Amino acid sequence: MRELKIFSGRANPALSRKICDFLNLRLGEITLQDFPDGEIACKIDEDIRGRDVFLIQPTCPPVNKNLMELLIMIDSCMRASAQRITAVIPYFGYARQDRKDEGRVPITAKLVANLITRAGANRALTMDMHAPQIQGFFDVPVDHLYGAPVLNSHFMDMGLCSDDVVVVSPDEGSIKRALGHSKRLGGTLAIVDKRRSSATHTRQENIIGGPIEGKIALMFDDMISTAGSICGAAEAVHRAGAKEIYVAATHGVLSGKAVEKLDAAPIKGLVLTDTIPLDPEKLLKKMTILTVAPLLGEAIKRIHQDESVSEIFGGETPAP
Amino acid sequence: MRELKIFSGRANPALSRKICDFLNLRLGEITLQDFPDGEIACKIDEDIRGRDVFLIQPTCPPVNKNLMELLIMIDSCMRASAQRITAVIPYFGYARQDRKDEGRVPITAKLVANLITRAGANRALTMDMHAPQIQGFFDVPVDHLYGAPVLNSHFMDMGLCSDDVVVVSPDEGSIKRALGHSKRLGGTLAIVDKRRSSATHTRQENIIGGPIEGKIALMFDDMISTAGSICGAAEAVHRAGAKEIYVAATHGVLSGKAVEKLDAAPIKGLVLTDTIPLDPEKLLKKMTILTVAPLLGEAIKRIHQDESVSEIFGGETPAP
Amino acid sequence: MRELKIFSGRANPALSRKICDFLNLRLGEITLQDFPDGEIACKIDEDIRGRDVFLIQPTCPPVNKNLMELLIMIDSCMRASAQRITAVIPYFGYARQDRKDEGRVPITAKLVANLITRAGANRALTMDMHAPQIQGFFDVPVDHLYGAPVLNSHFMDMGLCSDDVVVVSPDEGSIKRALGHSKRLGGTLAIVDKRRSSATHTRQENIIGGPIEGKIALMFDDMISTAGSICGAAEAVHRAGAKEIYVAATHGVLSGKAVEKLDAAPIKGLVLTDTIPLDPEKLLKKMTILTVAPLLGEAIKRIHQDESVSEIFGGETPAP
Amino acid sequence: MRELKIFSGRANPALSRKICDFLNLRLGEITLQDFPDGEIACKIDEDIRGRDVFLIQPTCPPVNKNLMELLIMIDSCMRASAQRITAVIPYFGYARQDRKDEGRVPITAKLVANLITRAGANRALTMDMHAPQIQGFFDVPVDHLYGAPVLNSHFMDMGLCSDDVVVVSPDEGSIKRALGHSKRLGGTLAIVDKRRSSATHTRQENIIGGPIEGKIALMFDDMISTAGSICGAAEAVHRAGAKEIYVAATHGVLSGKAVEKLDAAPIKGLVLTDTIPLDPEKLLKKMTILTVAPLLGEAIKRIHQDESVSEIFGGETPAP
Amino acid sequence: MRELKIFSGRANPALSRKICDFLNLRLGEITLQDFPDGEIACKIDEDIRGRDVFLIQPTCPPVNKNLMELLIMIDSCMRASAQRITAVIPYFGYARQDRKDEGRVPITAKLVANLITRAGANRALTMDMHAPQIQGFFDVPVDHLYGAPVLNSHFMDMGLCSDDVVVVSPDEGSIKRALGHSKRLGGTLAIVDKRRSSATHTRQENIIGGPIEGKIALMFDDMISTAGSICGAAEAVHRAGAKEIYVAATHGVLSGKAVEKLDAAPIKGLVLTDTIPLDPEKLLKKMTILTVAPLLGEAIKRIHQDESVSEIFGGETPAP
Amino acid sequence: MRELKIFSGRANPALSRKICDFLNLRLGEITLQDFPDGEIACKIDEDIRGRDVFLIQPTCPPVNKNLMELLIMIDSCMRASAQRITAVIPYFGYARQDRKDEGRVPITAKLVANLITRAGANRALTMDMHAPQIQGFFDVPVDHLYGAPVLNSHFMDMGLCSDDVVVVSPDEGSIKRALGHSKRLGGTLAIVDKRRSSATHTRQENIIGGPIEGKIALMFDDMISTAGSICGAAEAVHRAGAKEIYVAATHGVLSGKAVEKLDAAPIKGLVLTDTIPLDPEKLLKKMTILTVAPLLGEAIKRIHQDESVSEIFGGETPAP
Repeated sequence: MRELKIFSGRANPALSRKICDFLNLRLGEITLQDFPDGEIACKIDEDIRGRDVFLIQPTCPPVNKNLMELLIMIDSCMRASAQRITAVIPYFGYARQDRKDEGRVPITAKLVANLITRAGANRALTMDMHAPQIQGFFDVPVDHLYGAPVLNSHFMDMGLCSDDVVVVSPDEGSIKRALGHSKRLGGTLAIVDKRRSSATHTRQENIIGGPIEGKIALMFDDMISTAGSICGAAEAVHRAGAKEIYVAATHGVLSGKAVEKLDAAPIKGLVLTDTIPLDPEKLLKKMTILTVAPLLGEAIKRIHQDESVSEIFGGETPAP
Repeated sequence: MRELKIFSGRANPALSRKICDFLNLRLGEITLQDFPDGEIACKIDEDIRGRDVFLIQPTCPPVNKNLMELLIMIDSCMRASAQRITAVIPYFGYARQDRKDEGRVPITAKLVANLITRAGANRALTMDMHAPQIQGFFDVPVDHLYGAPVLNSHFMDMGLCSDDVVVVSPDEGSIKRALGHSKRLGGTLAIVDKRRSSATHTRQENIIGGPIEGKIALMFDDMISTAGSICGAAEAVHRAGAKEIYVAATHGVLSGKAVEKLDAAPIKGLVLTDTIPLDPEKLLKKMTILTVAPLLGEAIKRIHQDESVSEIFGGETPAP
Repeated sequence: MRELKIFSGRANPALSRKICDFLNLRLGEITLQDFPDGEIACKIDEDIRGRDVFLIQPTCPPVNKNLMELLIMIDSCMRASAQRITAVIPYFGYARQDRKDEGRVPITAKLVANLITRAGANRALTMDMHAPQIQGFFDVPVDHLYGAPVLNSHFMDMGLCSDDVVVVSPDEGSIKRALGHSKRLGGTLAIVDKRRSSATHTRQENIIGGPIEGKIALMFDDMISTAGSICGAAEAVHRAGAKEIYVAATHGVLSGKAVEKLDAAPIKGLVLTDTIPLDPEKLLKKMTILTVAPLLGEAIKRIHQDESVSEIFGGETPAP
Repeated sequence: MRELKIFSGRANPALSRKICDFLNLRLGEITLQDFPDGEIACKIDEDIRGRDVFLIQPTCPPVNKNLMELLIMIDSCMRASAQRITAVIPYFGYARQDRKDEGRVPITAKLVANLITRAGANRALTMDMHAPQIQGFFDVPVDHLYGAPVLNSHFMDMGLCSDDVVVVSPDEGSIKRALGHSKRLGGTLAIVDKRRSSATHTRQENIIGGPIEGKIALMFDDMISTAGSICGAAEAVHRAGAKEIYVAATHGVLSGKAVEKLDAAPIKGLVLTDTIPLDPEKLLKKMTILTVAPLLGEAIKRIHQDESVSEIFGGETPAP
Repeated sequence: MRELKIFSGRANPALSRKICDFLNLRLGEITLQDFPDGEIACKIDEDIRGRDVFLIQPTCPPVNKNLMELLIMIDSCMRASAQRITAVIPYFGYARQDRKDEGRVPITAKLVANLITRAGANRALTMDMHAPQIQGFFDVPVDHLYGAPVLNSHFMDMGLCSDDVVVVSPDEGSIKRALGHSKRLGGTLAIVDKRRSSATHTRQENIIGGPIEGKIALMFDDMISTAGSICGAAEAVHRAGAKEIYVAATHGVLSGKAVEKLDAAPIKGLVLTDTIPLDPEKLLKKMTILTVAPLLGEAIKRIHQDESVSEIFGGETPAP
Repeated sequence: MRELKIFSGRANPALSRKICDFLNLRLGEITLQDFPDGEIACKIDEDIRGRDVFLIQPTCPPVNKNLMELLIMIDSCMRASAQRITAVIPYFGYARQDRKDEGRVPITAKLVANLITRAGANRALTMDMHAPQIQGFFDVPVDHLYGAPVLNSHFMDMGLCSDDVVVVSPDEGSIKRALGHSKRLGGTLAIVDKRRSSATHTRQENIIGGPIEGKIALMFDDMISTAGSICGAAEAVHRAGAKEIYVAATHGVLSGKAVEKLDAAPIKGLVLTDTIPLDPEKLLKKMTILTVAPLLGEAIKRIHQDESVSEIFGGETPAP
């Protein structure tokens, strides 16, 4: 069987190393650097002819640079005669631009899928994409992993009693996700309704469902970017009398004032994964970072060995 | 300017005629028939060289035949040197198969988009697709229309008082749609929660939000297919004490026992549009069929004359 | 070597089972069903990652459904990371629409070839296509099998004496085929000339060549659809004094009133193959159904093992 | 309307000039020459930006050079921003290699179609291609013209009486063509049967149909290449007692010893068109060269002005 | 004729405005901004359906962001039904990565060409690309402009006497460029030879040709990036006794310590164009910035009006 | 591992045989012949299904025929189900047409790259292409070999003393090449400057650098076509007092009067390789033909066995 080779872009080398540790494999040697004018130089430092190559690069901020670096790595591997190139994109940037909700805007998520394929990727491996339809933006095979079991395990390990728990959807768009988690973790369901009161134009979150009073509230999202929405929801849940509030998300983008907002919000614990590297100085005490390296590593191994990937999740779909 | 030509497949000729009436245009002459073995024969009976051709064909049941007929029409027009071919698909079938929610299943909506483009269509015009991301399945321009204003107008014409109204989302996936309608029509919001009680395995719909008691409940969906879901929701809303229940959807697929179920359900009025032709014998007294021909006709005119289509909706997006 | 997997669409499962029996292989598990609105659902029930997949589906009536089912199966396999997908199409529908013999008509056979390739098939295996040029409609490798040896064997087993036989071409377009068979089976050649007498507009078949009188007439075609043409030719041959008339064709489409016409015609025996399933109630006593499963099975085995397929026919081309 | 520009390759400049004369247009200025090493240099000597460009180049011998010159002209026009490029190929070389009649051979006609499209041609205009299915080898619009009316006119002008005429198909593959001509010119039909007698391995043409004795025999083909087949047929028809024999074909390739053979054969008149230039020294007294320039010119004009091309032939298909 | 619309990315809005001023056209309205996580948002604020759209965006630093912004603008225009999209790229970044000069490196310039085409650009307009072969990386029409006449005019306006001038090629790769300029400006030619002396490993530039002593030396390049090479050459020329040294280049990338180096170097005047915006604080007194807006504006006008672009340069090629 | 198969076109069978001898492999059986009208017939005479196929064909004169033959061979292999097809093109014709140096000319080198890919080649192996950017004209992997080490070895074997040698670039475009050789062979550098004196319009080569007097001058080029340029340079070097002049090039096109000119020129030895076959009657006594068969053979072996090709050259790039 053709040899497996893993190379890492510069977006999240720590994750790449953990994946290689899990697989007991040496990370492939590659030189990536910036020319003084910011152009990216790439040189693969070992033979990959006929190999089964995996390129690990989340397209997290700086998104345009990380994406372009991934494309350049793909081009290098194609021209160097790799047998198969899998773009491993633990966090798929630009995923929220997945539709035209007004005239004359791009569908950037589709554009990105096209660019990756055009550059020469034969397949993609990604995780918790903002919308499941983005898989269909590709005409090459995509394996899509779910972070939900990793997050759920954390809460199950905390020994939360189902009777004390309320799973709260932070907005109307995340109800399916909340339902999925509550199926696993038990507890009741509530929704934060963010409609703007049209009369007074003041924004006041209401809570539908529940009850919240005296409960441990768990809120899940696929990503936390500016954290404005989730912090607003936490405030509402707090006002509604929740005993403790925990927030969990696969992708911790944490842009702008996100860390400050999260620090100030009535959130007791925040659980993220390591799909995106987090600046150590941004780490709050209340944050827990879980690793998805074993999950990605297992998927890479199965793809390389032609084994089922959906079986990792027992054939179930743990998230929307 | 190159001439506008409109041809109709056999899926919904009545709608095509109405569109041409609206545009004050003669419907193009085309011969479509089945050979004895079921293969479709197509012959365009007038010159279309260099013309701006629109082919109207919803891919409603029989979906495979209607889709194939559309593809054959496109091939005919391409080979007959049409200047531009727009596939007008008022109802886009296979749209619910827009993601891989388990292993080893197709993304048929993407496949269909690829087939339409491969056959030679230069653009598409469609309406209330099941998921807005499907636009991104195309790499040619797509104009996407919304039936919501047509449906809302109907209820506004009924003179419903905002205070009496509750907009009910029939399931968790339609909350955004319900929000959109309630923004226009006023009233409070409620959600039918269809989670299966895991203990007893009996299914019991709960209602979150409201109140429902004594109100006029409006429920909206993009399509009604077997009607099982919407009739179950209507039962729940009825049990919760709604005074009257109205249901509205753009696409009336009405497959299987849908008409019987709708007839029996505690629904006072059912509003559909004519994107899909309805067998006269399936028409219930409580049904109202609104036409979208002016909407489609206006869009065709604007596409032909290079005018903005999003402006039809005042630049707003009336639905998710 | 990567594993061979065979899956069957719903067009001709009996043939698929026979092919697997020949190969001593288990038929792959797949769930194909119609939703109430007629959309096809597909789920491949075993892992096919990296496998060499063959999908058996003649595009016989209902042609549009069978074709769409094939395309959906291909999409499923592509997205499930099959190593190679071969579309096995024992009967290739829409093959007669292989040219533009008037303005503004489609070349549907080319369209179908494009759709199959676009869906993701890497190669095709088919049999007795209406015109050999259709192979060129594909830009992927096509293996084309001939049913002629199977049909010829049947007549040779009947012990026909070459002196008694006349091979009759039922029309001007089948002369090459008749020549091919007579080369194997011996006998003289005759042609039924179907030109319409322009003066009286009555149609009267003439026979060129022969003699027919007292002979056993054999007529061959690639397919029998409405059977009008072949029954008319049989009448002419009968009038010309043939002792016995046998008709043979690879593909028994038998649409419309074909079975009734064949029953009534002066045909002693009709030989077909099982590329298309025949409704048991359509079976006439005079019909003999030969199986092509060993031929298709052998070809699949050779394709899988990288062995020559043309060698099956000893390097000869048994038909036009 | 964008301007029409016609350029000629070096294969048949005389025909290009006649076409321009017919259209009352100046032939476009282009420099085509061979470098000393045989590479072709091309320079278009007038602005063609945004123009509707037609490139006239039959791919007659030297076929590889003429084809490559056409491809280079197309590339030049694409890069020079022509609005639309139509490859006008009065004679389409490599057309007989349109199928795989044995293993491991090319389908060169398809390859050529792919090359022309890949180079950047937006459409093709051609004439009497060897097989009508070759149109389907293109995924761009093809207009296909028929030389038959030009040839028929010549014989009608000769005042042949239908009763004296027999249209003879020179082999089994040309029967449909013979039928088409006899429908126009009247007369009976006969076929030269070239089967090799397997016992003695001597070749002896038989004639099916007729009668021939004392008649004026007309034989038609799409092209005359080595002339071996047509001269053999003429011998057989001569032996069968034909009074006079005329042969007509659209494309006079006349390769190898064709002219000598035709000179020696019992053919009274040979009618060709000017799709392929004929070396003056190859001209026999019995040859008549008809021009297809008005036909091609009319088609170019109609394509340019978006008028029906099939209407030139009254909506009929004058040949197979 | 369809309307001309020009939009500017954020890379060089000043140049875009100057181009529009030259054309007496309003710059199109577009909203481009960064989300907090660095993803680019794009919204075209006026109707462009059926328009002839030009998007001006040099891919200068930050190159990855500017390139991605261009791709997103193209996607927006494609989906908004622009008639034609021309990517106007005054400076084409990544152009030096145009070959594989060692194993396992990318050809990023080709990748970028592919990305631009894949996103939906119908053509490109660019200027002084690092290698003329990059035009061939595109399969869509490219118009390539030369800055040389603008630079030459500057020196001619200075009234330099041909006898006093020596045109110096700063390295072996720029000799053709130097020859081109000296043809226009007169003077002798010299080359700075940068070969490393292998014995001592000290680098010492030699000068071939000349003489330099007492002359006004002019050095030209396509771009000045880190300025290391050009400053080294200036030192050598200075040592060789040049009276005055002038340096000119189309693209002033000026990355790293370029400005400091140029300031310190024995260069009397440095002439650049405005293809890349220059931070005002980077402006040195000895710098002169010439505008190429009229050149780009003229080219856009001619492309829009289907007039020859090569005629701008009198049919000549002013640079390699 | 899949089997390696090598087939030779008719351009240079001697080289193909030498390559197979080097590899200790039998040359694959293929029938290539011309029909009387010049169309090329191709039949691969052994099974290649699933094989790793290399097709050796330099596109030397007659370039159009050799190129078309290569394309037809590729099509045959693709349709015969080769696993992988590598076009081995020791001399890549049309390489000098790699840019648009004036308006309305083709970029034929790119066209050729596109044709080879379109025909179905999966990769290319070539040698000393005129410009290294041509690699980027392909979107499939290209392995590019250098003849320089073969040529250098020859001169090193001659025992030239570095002090006696001057490496002379025959024109301004070959300086990089001359530098590369002098780095290996030692000696000083000189350039022949071919600028036309504009005053008198007489052409007079000057020499920059040197000295030449009494030295052994070595001149290198990638190809020698008409030999006009190299003979002119030799004259200049001779006039400058060189003791002996040697010329070396990878590709000996030798078109037009090249051999006569070389015979007459003051060149003592001319070294070429066998990428292009040389007519024995064109062989001059002063010519030495070195074989590149071991180089090509080694590269083929490494490509087949997935080993690094750049390692052949020790990771260095021996030429521009």
